[in-house]
Amino acid sequence: MKIPYKTYLSEAQLPTAWMNLRHLVPHAPPILHPGTHAPVTLDLLSQVFVEELAKQELSDEKFISIPGEVLDFYRMIRPSPLVRAYALEKALDTPARIYYKFEGTNTSGSHKLNSAVPQAYYAKQQGLTSLTTETGAGQWGTALSMACAFYGIALDVYMVKISSAQKPYRKAVMETYGASVTPSPSNTTQAGRNALAENPDSKGSLGNAISEALEVAAGRENCRYVLGSVLQHVLLHQSVIGLEARAAMDSLEEYPDIVIGCAGGGSNLGGLIVTYAEDKIKGKASPRILAVEPASCPSLTRGTFAYDFGDVAKTTPLIKMYTLGSGFKPDANHAGGLRYHGMNTALSQLYEDGILEARAVPQRAVFDAAVLFARTEGTLPAPESAHAIRAAIDEALACKESGETKTILFGLSGTGYFDMAAYQDYLSGAMHDNIPTDETLARGFASLPKL
Amino acid sequence: MKIPYKTYLSEAQLPTAWMNLRHLVPHAPPILHPGTHAPVTLDLLSQVFVEELAKQELSDEKFISIPGEVLDFYRMIRPSPLVRAYALEKALDTPARIYYKFEGTNTSGSHKLNSAVPQAYYAKQQGLTSLTTETGAGQWGTALSMACAFYGIALDVYMVKISSAQKPYRKAVMETYGASVTPSPSNTTQAGRNALAENPDSKGSLGNAISEALEVAAGRENCRYVLGSVLQHVLLHQSVIGLEARAAMDSLEEYPDIVIGCAGGGSNLGGLIVTYAEDKIKGKASPRILAVEPASCPSLTRGTFAYDFGDVAKTTPLIKMYTLGSGFKPDANHAGGLRYHGMNTALSQLYEDGILEARAVPQRAVFDAAVLFARTEGTLPAPESAHAIRAAIDEALACKESGETKTILFGLSGTGYFDMAAYQDYLSGAMHDNIPTDETLARGFASLPKL
Repeated sequence: MKIPYKTYLSEAQLPTAWMNLRHLVPHAPPILHPGTHAPVTLDLLSQVFVEELAKQELSDEKFISIPGEVLDFYRMIRPSPLVRAYALEKALDTPARIYYKFEGTNTSGSHKLNSAVPQAYYAKQQGLTSLTTETGAGQWGTALSMACAFYGIALDVYMVKISSAQKPYRKAVMETYGASVTPSPSNTTQAGRNALAENPDSKGSLGNAISEALEVAAGRENCRYVLGSVLQHVLLHQSVIGLEARAAMDSLEEYPDIVIGCAGGGSNLGGLIVTYAEDKIKGKASPRILAVEPASCPSLTRGTFAYDFGDVAKTTPLIKMYTLGSGFKPDANHAGGLRYHGMNTALSQLYEDGILEARAVPQRAVFDAAVLFARTEGTLPAPESAHAIRAAIDEALACKESGETKTILFGLSGTGYFDMAAYQDYLSGAMHDNIPTDETLARGFASLPKL
Repeated sequence: MKIPYKTYLSEAQLPTAWMNLRHLVPHAPPILHPGTHAPVTLDLLSQVFVEELAKQELSDEKFISIPGEVLDFYRMIRPSPLVRAYALEKALDTPARIYYKFEGTNTSGSHKLNSAVPQAYYAKQQGLTSLTTETGAGQWGTALSMACAFYGIALDVYMVKISSAQKPYRKAVMETYGASVTPSPSNTTQAGRNALAENPDSKGSLGNAISEALEVAAGRENCRYVLGSVLQHVLLHQSVIGLEARAAMDSLEEYPDIVIGCAGGGSNLGGLIVTYAEDKIKGKASPRILAVEPASCPSLTRGTFAYDFGDVAKTTPLIKMYTLGSGFKPDANHAGGLRYHGMNTALSQLYEDGILEARAVPQRAVFDAAVLFARTEGTLPAPESAHAIRAAIDEALACKESGETKTILFGLSGTGYFDMAAYQDYLSGAMHDNIPTDETLARGFASLPKL
């Protein structure tokens, strides 16, 4: 059988239920109330989050049905293609077979839309009239803007100030979909004013933008805060990536020796690996599963497995995760995304259990891989996704060395069309690797709560 | 049969030969030598163009085989989806069935890559080492950069200065693929220096950028000029759009009552309509076929069918086409693309023969349609493509009025991710329609050559 360049599932083959990674790690630590340190209740979570999302956050069901109206939107943007990287294989002269699941063909430019759609849908079902969120690189804000436009919900986006400056057109895209976008830190919230008082020239951070979005949602009627990574319900929605990829790989009679995903908060990785992680846990197969993170924000490879806040202002419930501390500040010149200080709990537990491996890669090596990929496979990748490309290339080159014909599957989570300032830095030689010193890490760890 | 949201052909169903629109209009006037006014020979054309492309330019064969190495690249970027616009239909509350063929999922963001790939391939086969071209909105330059990176050919792009300023990241994308990009008019050519002497603040035009690219190619060893629209061989390559769309429509047992494409130089339109135009000419069916052009650059609806130069410097062979004159200057504030002064010969002949209809639409109505489309169908369209959306919406609304259940097929030739400055103008109310006065048109017509 000649394997096609691209494999698309038919509409009838698309998943109709999400698969819950949390189900695979029942021993993963629960979310705790920040005051009492007792496991959070649905009631408490529902005060902050959309109720159905709070339910999903606490669920350990294996499968959760995808509502019909969500499927209707999914069918506009999915299936995404599973691509055989013939041209990259040829350029590397590797015996490895390289596949990637490409999530960047929708206007948000990434996998983020997979979770934005159900989040906006459930908000609408609950009778909410507006949502707030944060965005870093902009993919999540764009995705949520699209979903909110579709379901008719108002949206306020707090966008990390440095990203907002580097990507003015991301803001314009969100506004085209009707969202209101505020660079963070801003003077519209107490959290923002505090950050500006501390440093008027602050370039912002995801943690701070989260604090601002949370504060606005808490003070407004029929409004909730939603977010695009880290949490369990987000990984649940992203399982459509992995379920589709698995069905397509199975249809080609291919099973990966290694599954690779980039990892910031973990949603893309958690979505991609879900069925293969189950195989490994159940002893049905032994694929390597690899998380790739930036050396400049290395939560798995240099972090610690501890309870931590999700935001800088320390207002969220406590989540046990591999973390650098919510006070960790990645270098502002780091252009590769994946800037979040912590990692989803279930993924952290899989790493703790030895099911998941992790690797940190420096920024310039990531852009080397991104440019090689663009010039061979045609698609210009998001810097975030290029972390996975870097690792896939390194694995393929190892196969060339050893002569092994391995099957590699990686997640190409998005495109880099709004990241050209970073590419310009790379091409001009202005880019640095920005690897944090031990002292920088120590300052982050010092911000961890004492339980 | 429930029609799916998206129909993808399998790899085995992809076209292996292009279909030549020129074959359908054997009576269309030939290209003339600008000095002798005799039909151009292959020898003459091959001095300017890649030889195989020159052959295709003069061919009246119905089908021309697609080389295997071009098919290899096509399989990375194709098939493109045929989409049923369920959400748009619902928003319009129309009984019409709306389909669109979406060419924007590749990194160039448009259909232009369909022709860039064979053009770079044939150049490589001929042993050329570099190419030159012009780009306006940037899609063509990006597409050719991608193809040249793949086949290993150097590329110089002359980019219309106003576009270069409005879309700095387009330039960065081309540079990421290894192209050299020069804003036009520039002081690197005589044509550029002449334009700057006439107006140091010139914002540039496609016609002038063409002159610069031609001049550089003429003065360099193993180099040729290539272009992305207007000419017959470009429309030939774009027939993959129409051949795929036809196969997909046939598989759904759908036949369009009306086929709609936006029209600048005509490559997207000519590619889309090719099989339906044949049906109409042969009396097998009578679909309406509609070209949609900007009211600010109305070559079909307000132009004249005459021999004209392809460029401002009047250096190209003479092409008979619907034209506003190579001296026509569209308003610099026109953001909607499709700025070329003339229209492909075969399409012009089809319009002359009454096979093709044309409609001009003003810019703000185009962006109204673009935003509605983005907020319902999810995809943010290129301003160029939004001309077709505007007409499709108007036709669907007419169906609502009349109660007719028509089938509408339009070409969504690309995405607008690099056109956000134009969207910002629209959203802020700063956009105008820029419809040329009769005096402006008269100045353009005065530039026509006397034969």
